[in-house]
Amino acid sequence: MNTSLPTLPTLPTLGDTVAARQIVARYHPRTPLYPSASLSRRYGCQVWVKYENHAPIRSFKARGALVSLSGLEGANRTRGVVSASTGNHGQGLAYAGGKLGIPVTIVAPTTTAQIKVAAMRDLGADLRLEGTDLAQATQVALTLAEHEGKVYIEDGEDPGLMAGAASLTWEILDEMTPDVLLIPVGGGNLIASVAIVARAVAPRCQVIGVQSDAAPSVYQSWQAGQLTYAPCATFAGGLATDHPGALAFEVIRGQVDDVVTVREEDLRRGIVRTLAATGNVAEGAGAAAVAALERYGSRWAGQRVVALLSGGNIDLADLRATLTQYGDEGRDA
Amino acid sequence: MNTSLPTLPTLPTLGDTVAARQIVARYHPRTPLYPSASLSRRYGCQVWVKYENHAPIRSFKARGALVSLSGLEGANRTRGVVSASTGNHGQGLAYAGGKLGIPVTIVAPTTTAQIKVAAMRDLGADLRLEGTDLAQATQVALTLAEHEGKVYIEDGEDPGLMAGAASLTWEILDEMTPDVLLIPVGGGNLIASVAIVARAVAPRCQVIGVQSDAAPSVYQSWQAGQLTYAPCATFAGGLATDHPGALAFEVIRGQVDDVVTVREEDLRRGIVRTLAATGNVAEGAGAAAVAALERYGSRWAGQRVVALLSGGNIDLADLRATLTQYGDEGRDA
Repeated sequence: MNTSLPTLPTLPTLGDTVAARQIVARYHPRTPLYPSASLSRRYGCQVWVKYENHAPIRSFKARGALVSLSGLEGANRTRGVVSASTGNHGQGLAYAGGKLGIPVTIVAPTTTAQIKVAAMRDLGADLRLEGTDLAQATQVALTLAEHEGKVYIEDGEDPGLMAGAASLTWEILDEMTPDVLLIPVGGGNLIASVAIVARAVAPRCQVIGVQSDAAPSVYQSWQAGQLTYAPCATFAGGLATDHPGALAFEVIRGQVDDVVTVREEDLRRGIVRTLAATGNVAEGAGAAAVAALERYGSRWAGQRVVALLSGGNIDLADLRATLTQYGDEGRDA
Repeated sequence: MNTSLPTLPTLPTLGDTVAARQIVARYHPRTPLYPSASLSRRYGCQVWVKYENHAPIRSFKARGALVSLSGLEGANRTRGVVSASTGNHGQGLAYAGGKLGIPVTIVAPTTTAQIKVAAMRDLGADLRLEGTDLAQATQVALTLAEHEGKVYIEDGEDPGLMAGAASLTWEILDEMTPDVLLIPVGGGNLIASVAIVARAVAPRCQVIGVQSDAAPSVYQSWQAGQLTYAPCATFAGGLATDHPGALAFEVIRGQVDDVVTVREEDLRRGIVRTLAATGNVAEGAGAAAVAALERYGSRWAGQRVVALLSGGNIDLADLRATLTQYGDEGRDA
């Protein structure tokens, strides 16, 4: 095992992702990949869903955190880490810290969904509610890291996080070789991890990112061929960023086949569609792949498409409001 | 492996459940058992949830079906099986038939939930909609078995189904030894399978059944010490029966520690509570263990309680109506 992964200044190699998978497998269950007859019928392709909402923290984020924290040694391990998060990334770190016995401090904006605040605390994080958005929380986290001698972890700039996230792509490829992988994209760390593995071992598989048009920075960066900032106003916490991670974008620029956008209402409808077709709760980001199938499904007619359900943490009130407004979407599932 | 299991006229032994687990493990993923901090806090005990809704058919029913069908040989295997079902049992048989290459015919009442009809067809069952309730569908299935030379499988009277269902208890005991197992009870096959394993290898673990007071036949039978019929008017398909399986009741009578009842509205609230606390969709039966915690949780203060989420197949319209009426239950999750 390559314990120096998390401090590498460079992208993880394919070998790093294999070493990372060994760490993940020690502390994290494999998640299911099931075909969906209902979605396949609707979209005219062969749809599988990879259920990251079945993970212990209901999103894929513990995978990378386990690898990133496993690389800490000495005083860094004792003093622990600090990061800013609106939820899933913080839960991932808290889960990993609990498994590995490493203190984790998370700075979350005061606007963070209640279900995610409770979950981070329940997992043992030292949770501080500071700032009204992720940018402000990040400033607080950086200051805290400096004052308390903790390691600051930046989602989207950490090779360990990327290498660990790749474990879900290895799990998919253990079972089948898709023609298309539909991946929700926030800062791009996840899709970069997918691309590293897929490009090397399944080169004909198309890796396609899905963003909200209310937070299209990776879409615009990919189109422009350079890292670009864009306004961020999506309700989907897992997609909410105004710029790609620099490390992630190094991969995305050259190795992702396409990035598409969906509207906010497509994400809401995707939540309902996912629930009706699979019985699973997706958060906004988790529904992005199904939303992309709804808008662009005819492009992949007859092909084997894996829709990554990246997470299922959504407040009950939000889910209820979505079902009330868009519930008829699910009638013919 | 004991391939004669399904035709045994007697109860499965502990050894039969171990042999059955080998079959299940070949075709069925292990389901997760996660602690729930939210439910633990609410009920003052240490609550784990066993997520059978994460199984490929979103309920535990494929486990037993795999074992039951594995025991067929010769002409029985070629002609296949027929059974009556309102949904999950039929999906279990259809799944097993697909994996093992055995034709499966299911007779479902015309009132069966749309999501379950579609799911059985998608899994490859020859589905016939006949009769307005399970009793009528059962008569049709029996006639069909006779005319077409198929093996008739009766849920709750089949040692293979019982031995296969026991695999989930073995999975729990691989990870921890509970003080209390809370098990939803319809005809009693599932709780009988739990009791066979738990009595033998975790004798201090209390096995407690949960029924709806709108379908209390096992509760009344257990109280009376003899097989008793009771009216059945529950909305929860997985609990809907008017009498215990005779084979199941042989075990339940002597080896189940208690059977409790909850109200229909407790099941509805349990669906909301489960969703708010765990992000998982439970059907009515699947929420019975959480409903029992809500009513009787103080009995198990401080103890390690496993709540079995037996299934998650619920129509979207039904879920939406439940959230609309009882959604405030989840506010403080």
